[in-house]
Amino acid sequence: MYDVTEVRRDFPILSREVNNKPLVYLDNGASAQKPQVVIDAITRTYSQEYANVHRGLHYLSNLATDNYESVRGKVARFLNAASEDEIVFNSGTTEGINLIAYSWAMPMLQAGDEIILSVMEHHANIVPWHFLRERQGIVIKWVDVDSTGALDPQAVIDAITPKTKLIAITHMSNVLGTKVDVKTITQAAHAKGVAVLVDGSQAAVHMPVDVQDIGCDFYAITGHKLYGPSGSGAIYIKADRMKQMRPFIGGGDMIKEVSKDGVVYNDPPMMFEAGTPGIVQTIGMGVAIDYMMDLGMANIAAHEDRLRDYAVAKLGGLNWIQVQGTTPDKGAIFSFTMEGAAHAHDISTILDKKGVAVRAGQHCTGPLMEHMGLPATCRASMGLYNTEAEIDILVEALELAHELFA
Amino acid sequence: MYDVTEVRRDFPILSREVNNKPLVYLDNGASAQKPQVVIDAITRTYSQEYANVHRGLHYLSNLATDNYESVRGKVARFLNAASEDEIVFNSGTTEGINLIAYSWAMPMLQAGDEIILSVMEHHANIVPWHFLRERQGIVIKWVDVDSTGALDPQAVIDAITPKTKLIAITHMSNVLGTKVDVKTITQAAHAKGVAVLVDGSQAAVHMPVDVQDIGCDFYAITGHKLYGPSGSGAIYIKADRMKQMRPFIGGGDMIKEVSKDGVVYNDPPMMFEAGTPGIVQTIGMGVAIDYMMDLGMANIAAHEDRLRDYAVAKLGGLNWIQVQGTTPDKGAIFSFTMEGAAHAHDISTILDKKGVAVRAGQHCTGPLMEHMGLPATCRASMGLYNTEAEIDILVEALELAHELFA
Repeated sequence: MYDVTEVRRDFPILSREVNNKPLVYLDNGASAQKPQVVIDAITRTYSQEYANVHRGLHYLSNLATDNYESVRGKVARFLNAASEDEIVFNSGTTEGINLIAYSWAMPMLQAGDEIILSVMEHHANIVPWHFLRERQGIVIKWVDVDSTGALDPQAVIDAITPKTKLIAITHMSNVLGTKVDVKTITQAAHAKGVAVLVDGSQAAVHMPVDVQDIGCDFYAITGHKLYGPSGSGAIYIKADRMKQMRPFIGGGDMIKEVSKDGVVYNDPPMMFEAGTPGIVQTIGMGVAIDYMMDLGMANIAAHEDRLRDYAVAKLGGLNWIQVQGTTPDKGAIFSFTMEGAAHAHDISTILDKKGVAVRAGQHCTGPLMEHMGLPATCRASMGLYNTEAEIDILVEALELAHELFA
Repeated sequence: MYDVTEVRRDFPILSREVNNKPLVYLDNGASAQKPQVVIDAITRTYSQEYANVHRGLHYLSNLATDNYESVRGKVARFLNAASEDEIVFNSGTTEGINLIAYSWAMPMLQAGDEIILSVMEHHANIVPWHFLRERQGIVIKWVDVDSTGALDPQAVIDAITPKTKLIAITHMSNVLGTKVDVKTITQAAHAKGVAVLVDGSQAAVHMPVDVQDIGCDFYAITGHKLYGPSGSGAIYIKADRMKQMRPFIGGGDMIKEVSKDGVVYNDPPMMFEAGTPGIVQTIGMGVAIDYMMDLGMANIAAHEDRLRDYAVAKLGGLNWIQVQGTTPDKGAIFSFTMEGAAHAHDISTILDKKGVAVRAGQHCTGPLMEHMGLPATCRASMGLYNTEAEIDILVEALELAHELFA
């Protein structure tokens, strides 16, 4: 376990005020704040160690390349990938999932083939598959969650037919906090020859991830949610699947040779990284991953589990608040509505006046909102630096909102 | 005109040493160094002003959104676009050109349709079109440069046939420094109903750009070459062309509504910006563009023209150096080979020992290298902060290399 007071000192923004109140940042599901070591790494790189990578032979280019490429191994260790060659850098989960849609699914799937999604997927794990539906006649099959927000893995497995080629599923819902048993799903899927893509945007932030244990084919993460820079990310792709993929973004670095008549593409993972990459943000993501692993992912998970239990008890005491997602082992993500007429946006505006940052809206989960019959929710999503005292402030602010709107 | 000594103080990395020599950074064609104001903007954002954009209603989210969205107008002014709604943010020119390939060309072009490229295009403006050739039977037609590296606009215009749908062409060669008369080409192309994409990766760094004057349909720029952060960029897309384009990357933000059965896409430019964008790097790109415009693009061009003329004279005095690209109005980019057996990589290694950073290799221009009959060149590419004294150091280092390899 770590000392959260000490940890908070690592994040400069957490000591600022908002609307004359100390910032209570509970919008981690949208994006996390950055520790000073990440900010320092960015500053140091631009001030002393910057050049383009892979291309030069001069000192700064070699230095930047070493710093950049060292992150591949960090991500591999973070996810327990078998090899760093199974890690492709990108700008985040959205680009990662689109890579699989364009490079693997579009050439591999035929009209009538099926992709299974859960109803709680994020738009980043829905819209790319709608592209395949619109453009190639692929069929999307949806699996619902129950009233607690739980997803029965057997329901996913039962949805598999001989036409199923891919299950694309979140590891942790960004709205409900629900954890999904992606290992059980993957084992059954692989027994039937079905590939599995896991959207790890949220899960990798909140708990240890082991892609070899899960056995999945693709696992996407986003750096800016992992306390790293905006525009950073990576996707794990099992070596065998990489061999089935064609290039996606074309340009420098992803080629061995370009002539007037054709292209010889580079080997994976370079084949999937075109042009000048996000050099400095990737270096920063590496520092953020080091920071998390130094704290210990199990420690982060334990800290957040305690926050979750505290918030469950506190919010449970407000009988005019309806929390969506009540599975006992969920992540510390709380989406809720308030009895009475108060719109989620109005609630978040009141909270903001008290310095409490939450998100209000659909959280990029249209189908889930439709399933729950809600136009929008407020969401308080916690991170490694949040405290029980902050949950108290959230509750006080909610009580104020309730009084105002009652 | 500006005082280059003062300007150099704005770039912290320029005061460092490499191999115990003052850094002489002449690898600007690969990527430019960053002024302190850009580094400070990144630090300030992460330390005090960071949140995800477009999604929250809380104070930090609104602040980050305002800072991020204000860059769209800056880019529009920088390129003299008619509207900031014609600016799409991305991670750089590679992604920008791929957007046009996937969103505009793939659905619009049929097998047998022709795309015209110049032989001096960068791989970022070649490989996406090879994708269309490989996947859809599109034909690529190449236009050569003459022995000075000049591209006759009439040769491009003469290559147009009734099958031609697109001319994709650089505004300034990253190897030769050649400027291309893209305005004349665009006028003739449009008279025949042919669209024009301009790769502005280099040109926008070195000279004023006016997309309305050029009249082109697409103009791609890269933030990291414009003294901005890695992973930043934008593309200008004429409003009429945006209407012809389908979505490319799918995810959050680029949609109005997502259901199980379908998607209602957002209006352009948002339709082409999926997921959490490169928030902080885009903010940094805005500061970099402000920095350049404060110096004045005409002043930057005049400074670099003087450097070019000085380098032409100095390098011209070394009769064992062959400079590629000798058009009189070229940008200050010098690719060269050395008489005798010295490989470009060996030359750059010697220069590096003297603190001089240049690039050696093919510079992502396979077809141009083939056209010139060269396996590789050394390239010294200048930026707004370089000096005549640095060119003297380059020449001294070249003389040393010549002695060693002679």
